[in-house]
Amino acid sequence: MSVPDRERLARVALNRLGEPGDVKMTALVAELGAVRLHDLLLHERDPHGLRTDVAARLASVDPVRELERAARVGLRFVVPGDDEWPESLGDLAAASSIQDRGGVPVGLWVKGPLRLDRLVDAVAVVGSRAATQYGADVARDIGAVVARSGRVVVSGAAFGIDVAAHRGAISGGAATDGPSVAILACGADRVYPQAHREVIDHIAATGAVVSEAAPGCSPQRVRFLARNRLIAALSRGTVVVEAARRSGALNTANWAGRLQRSLMGVPGPVTSAGSAGVHELIRAGAMTLVTGGGDVLEMVGAAGEHLVEEHREPPTARDRLTVRQRQVLDAVPVGQPAHPDSIARVAGLGLLEVRAGLTRLLDSGLVEVADGGWRLTAEAHG
Amino acid sequence: MSVPDRERLARVALNRLGEPGDVKMTALVAELGAVRLHDLLLHERDPHGLRTDVAARLASVDPVRELERAARVGLRFVVPGDDEWPESLGDLAAASSIQDRGGVPVGLWVKGPLRLDRLVDAVAVVGSRAATQYGADVARDIGAVVARSGRVVVSGAAFGIDVAAHRGAISGGAATDGPSVAILACGADRVYPQAHREVIDHIAATGAVVSEAAPGCSPQRVRFLARNRLIAALSRGTVVVEAARRSGALNTANWAGRLQRSLMGVPGPVTSAGSAGVHELIRAGAMTLVTGGGDVLEMVGAAGEHLVEEHREPPTARDRLTVRQRQVLDAVPVGQPAHPDSIARVAGLGLLEVRAGLTRLLDSGLVEVADGGWRLTAEAHG
Repeated sequence: MSVPDRERLARVALNRLGEPGDVKMTALVAELGAVRLHDLLLHERDPHGLRTDVAARLASVDPVRELERAARVGLRFVVPGDDEWPESLGDLAAASSIQDRGGVPVGLWVKGPLRLDRLVDAVAVVGSRAATQYGADVARDIGAVVARSGRVVVSGAAFGIDVAAHRGAISGGAATDGPSVAILACGADRVYPQAHREVIDHIAATGAVVSEAAPGCSPQRVRFLARNRLIAALSRGTVVVEAARRSGALNTANWAGRLQRSLMGVPGPVTSAGSAGVHELIRAGAMTLVTGGGDVLEMVGAAGEHLVEEHREPPTARDRLTVRQRQVLDAVPVGQPAHPDSIARVAGLGLLEVRAGLTRLLDSGLVEVADGGWRLTAEAHG
Repeated sequence: MSVPDRERLARVALNRLGEPGDVKMTALVAELGAVRLHDLLLHERDPHGLRTDVAARLASVDPVRELERAARVGLRFVVPGDDEWPESLGDLAAASSIQDRGGVPVGLWVKGPLRLDRLVDAVAVVGSRAATQYGADVARDIGAVVARSGRVVVSGAAFGIDVAAHRGAISGGAATDGPSVAILACGADRVYPQAHREVIDHIAATGAVVSEAAPGCSPQRVRFLARNRLIAALSRGTVVVEAARRSGALNTANWAGRLQRSLMGVPGPVTSAGSAGVHELIRAGAMTLVTGGGDVLEMVGAAGEHLVEEHREPPTARDRLTVRQRQVLDAVPVGQPAHPDSIARVAGLGLLEVRAGLTRLLDSGLVEVADGGWRLTAEAHG
């Protein structure tokens, strides 16, 4: 690690001081650097009106002890300059903030063996907490396909779509290292929601649990909003599986758009409120429709790397006909049977040709004889 | 009517001679005019290799008798120059043909009180014969909404989506004249499929049943292909409700695209093969996603005429808060309750302000007291 201790410790202290994604904080760090900002805040009067009691609060933080305590529960604090720092987060510097949340995080708390720079081609799969069974099934499928391709599936470990995507990734990526990363709104040493303790623990053991919130922090609304920007920023593309019109998943989608990541949406029945937010964005051209993991990989893949196999249906009996035979076929009626001379007239062909053609079509099961005439079979009509 | 008898009779004869959408025929009529082509074919040797036995066949047609016979079963033959001739069909002259079908029809056989020029703002609703219940329900809804707006719903009277759209139009447009038009592949004096006799008869009595095929013709594959181009050409936009990857409805969609009409598609579950063809075209950007009749009217309407009402949800309790109250709310945890001083720190507000805010939020049902602290209610977390 080439990051000086002083830099890391200053960032630990600033991270504890500010809320995740606090734009004043992230902007000042970008402008002044972490060490200089920390010194200014600690030793001088608050120069930019960041906080009024900031010096006192900052003085009470012991970053060395924070790091030691964190290490004891398996947490590391990853900062810019670390080998595993994901360069993708740099895009947050230029992206405009939403509701006072934004900017490059001061650092990220990470638990788990997966290095954050492995996220370079990760895919985020997010959506409604109140998912339908359909949505959960699709999220799980996409998670599995993405993980099977060797890419990391990023999500927020929430109820519904999030946890289905994690679970799919874990099942699909059993052979690969660290198939999934959970980005939490609470401290990375905590578990939220409690019901997902098992899957979050599994992710911490095989992939990574990540949070911008300092250890011990509880999940608050501001932290969810700040967290959503990290899900979008740490992934090459975001897939929204189900989202009602006001769903928080659309906040993540919004970030993906601002960060110029691929933004994908899975359609569903138009009668399902849970798909309405997705349909709205596809309709507006803000989101690309995807129907499964194959489509997703095509969108996020390097050019040509993961092209969806063209959906080539198996050749039908019709495909195997000669041009002449098809001309005959196209002139055979679907309902009332017709005589070969009427078929010949419609086809513009000679009667002998038509008779030969009809015999071949009969063999193929495309036409049938009825009431002394010829007509298409149900198969040919298809 | 300003169309000379000679012109109309020549077109009746040419219509009987050629198959619907025969590109040689439509191109020669466009080049030479119907009367001149008719004379050439009848009196000279076939100048363009259209048919070899053409003169004999043409001589056997008695267009005056054809018109009389047609009139007896309620059919009229509408040709270019007639008041009700829909100018939209002119677009077929420039659009390239598909599988040797294309061009402006020589004339159209029409049964029913609706004038074809009423189709100027019509909407086509088409799709799979093998529709799902979901697809049929959506098609019926769209048909009803479009008809209620005073526009005509055009379709092909086939099983599945087509007939559901017609039925929706009939129910939705009960107050307006001629809510629906059926364009058939068989003669307009016939009924196909037989199972839809009642709905086709109803359309003939209130709207119009239209065909390019001469009276008495049976439904053949070439006629379906030619018919599809008319469905697209006669409508301002085409909605595909369900279509598997090889569905004939995609042939109509293809025509709508060539004719630069609005092309719309209704999404469905990605697990439904019946929606796969629609999803593919939306994904490719060839088709706009629509979720119902409102979206459709917005697409085909004149600018501003049928703007979809913005989906404005009723204001939530959160919407009614002051900025300060929202800041407090955003700092309240979702799981483990927090003390007001911790909330004040997260919010960056004074303790008194936070306490006042919490009281107001409690009244609104957005926060609750638990274990001596404060947390969001399920409603607020939404």
